[in-house]
Amino acid sequence: MYNFEYKNPVKILFGKGQIAKLKDELPAGTKILMLYGGGSIFKNGVYNQVTEALTGFDVVEFGGIEPNPTYETSMEAVKVVKRENIGFLLSVGGGSVLDATKFIAAASLYEEGDPRDFLKPGKDKVPVQKALPLGSVLTLPATGSEMNGNSVISIRETTEKLAFGSLHVMPKFSVLDPETIFSLPDKQVANGVVDAFVHVIEQYLTFPVDSPLQDRQAEAVLLTLIEEGPKVLANRKDYNASANFMWSATIALNGLLGVGVPQDWATHGIGHELTAYHGIDHARTLAIVLPALMDVKRKQKEAKLLQYGERVWNIREGSVDERIDQAIRKTVEFFESVGIPTRLPDYGVTMDTIERIEKRFAARGTKLGERYDIDAAETRKILEKQL
Amino acid sequence: MYNFEYKNPVKILFGKGQIAKLKDELPAGTKILMLYGGGSIFKNGVYNQVTEALTGFDVVEFGGIEPNPTYETSMEAVKVVKRENIGFLLSVGGGSVLDATKFIAAASLYEEGDPRDFLKPGKDKVPVQKALPLGSVLTLPATGSEMNGNSVISIRETTEKLAFGSLHVMPKFSVLDPETIFSLPDKQVANGVVDAFVHVIEQYLTFPVDSPLQDRQAEAVLLTLIEEGPKVLANRKDYNASANFMWSATIALNGLLGVGVPQDWATHGIGHELTAYHGIDHARTLAIVLPALMDVKRKQKEAKLLQYGERVWNIREGSVDERIDQAIRKTVEFFESVGIPTRLPDYGVTMDTIERIEKRFAARGTKLGERYDIDAAETRKILEKQL
Repeated sequence: MYNFEYKNPVKILFGKGQIAKLKDELPAGTKILMLYGGGSIFKNGVYNQVTEALTGFDVVEFGGIEPNPTYETSMEAVKVVKRENIGFLLSVGGGSVLDATKFIAAASLYEEGDPRDFLKPGKDKVPVQKALPLGSVLTLPATGSEMNGNSVISIRETTEKLAFGSLHVMPKFSVLDPETIFSLPDKQVANGVVDAFVHVIEQYLTFPVDSPLQDRQAEAVLLTLIEEGPKVLANRKDYNASANFMWSATIALNGLLGVGVPQDWATHGIGHELTAYHGIDHARTLAIVLPALMDVKRKQKEAKLLQYGERVWNIREGSVDERIDQAIRKTVEFFESVGIPTRLPDYGVTMDTIERIEKRFAARGTKLGERYDIDAAETRKILEKQL
Repeated sequence: MYNFEYKNPVKILFGKGQIAKLKDELPAGTKILMLYGGGSIFKNGVYNQVTEALTGFDVVEFGGIEPNPTYETSMEAVKVVKRENIGFLLSVGGGSVLDATKFIAAASLYEEGDPRDFLKPGKDKVPVQKALPLGSVLTLPATGSEMNGNSVISIRETTEKLAFGSLHVMPKFSVLDPETIFSLPDKQVANGVVDAFVHVIEQYLTFPVDSPLQDRQAEAVLLTLIEEGPKVLANRKDYNASANFMWSATIALNGLLGVGVPQDWATHGIGHELTAYHGIDHARTLAIVLPALMDVKRKQKEAKLLQYGERVWNIREGSVDERIDQAIRKTVEFFESVGIPTRLPDYGVTMDTIERIEKRFAARGTKLGERYDIDAAETRKILEKQL
């Protein structure tokens, strides 16, 4: 096992009716900016629950944060924060609203330069030193953003999708009420299941470092997503299935699965490019990239691919390559069974985009994967598999 | 799944060499009280590592905290805290030193009455409202105290062993260096394995509430303890086995396994009495009580006992009662395989003690277990099984 540091002070309030507790979690005497997205919270009753809980607080609203939230929209919110003298940010929505809220929290207190500094790839990245406090009411299990300090922001101007992370932007609290997902469309449930699934895989499917507890805990989340995801899709009002899915998505990326082990975030790194160029839903880009990455890196990941196949899919027969093929096939079948296609032509992506990504990664000197050996050329190879 | 709240802000510094990082975690300009036990830290090099890391800090030492730490010793430390104007407590040792440190942290700031108020059983318990900040260097994986707000204190005068818990006494940080356990005697390793194992069982072996993720994560810890514990016993210098054991003991009781599910702390509740009257090592009392409790509550716990048998011990054949018998037998064999006897005569305990415990529980109106139905009479029945 590797050495590690871990700290996660996010307070979780989980279960039906917990939105009412907001009033005990928010700081008194502070002006609050409530941020949300395209308006689904008006349809599912969450807006009403939240505003009721906020009775007596001084609240300003900022709506219209888009999926794959942008730097440009976030900077509009920063203007509101400054103009209105906001002291606390409350994200009400899914991972996109929350990621934007994290960026806004940091950008609002950054006077030293352009907040895009936080997003720069590689060693040019400027670390966040301070941020406004924030909390969240989650309405879409997927990103795990509710219990970590990560955020992904798109820059419209440059067609880039970039990540940053900081302890300073961890939510003070996150309210997770499984009933808020009863009205989600199938597509968003499926995206959430796949996003959470791939988060686990990226902390698990690398090479063995004798970490049996982390391995088993990762497999626990994978098995639960495989079991509960389809239940939620089949019956959106199944409270326990929704709760198990929601909690699995949080555990998938609250950092605990990844302590002391190598990690491989190449699927996210490559997937972000497909979103940047084509606006493909984040989870769908992961479903495209992951099976191809498993295939291309089958030698390097052999031991963990076999373990994954055996413990998650019960694959015990055949040669090493046959078992790995089966594990990849099972993964693809799972993604497709929840309605997510895994090939580039399904999304209208052609060789042209692959070449643009290759060129961009070459210019950036990108090196992804647990051994930092997935460069521009190998990224091309991975994407070509899905043409 | 039940509703729940979860917050755990403890920072973990895990791995070899991490003790040197103490200097970055301790508050500057504050007088520190370093607390330890019977002196094993002088033999295993931990004392030297810690004092080296504390160079430049103003440190007072308080040694001699006993296993099953007492109110009486803790109050001596409180006097030192007040006399020396201590601002931060650093526990260096196992769960006993840390539990005492938590009690001292709360007692030092309690002017409203006798700090034994925190320990009162039932509704007389006074909640901790504030405490001195504390940190820990852990040298014995077992109690999980390094990543929670729990503490168990014995009162010598009244032969009582009582628990309290508070967010205010959660460590600011805990340093977990697996190399610190290389010199532990077999007995302490075995105690640690059993203590951690039973912590998991008490959050798991109740009745089903459709919580597949918590169940699988609990089973992940049990399987890892069964696998890694004997490795540590066989070769005390096996770093990875020590690391896996140490991290398992922390995860066993950092609260995550128990969110949203019923819990049954009866084994601890009854075990504490055996320690209070006979000074039996805490873990050994658990090894005595648990198998008998499984037996007596076999109907109520049937579904989870069968799941435990199947997933942890691979028991798939036989009638319900046969499978439960096998699961209990496997548990006993595991405890005895690491050198921990499970019958009362092994510890010289007779019917006389059982009657004293029954009488005490009757006077207190004790009701233990996930259904609060283990009363004085049923406690007697459980203990009689192990005569």
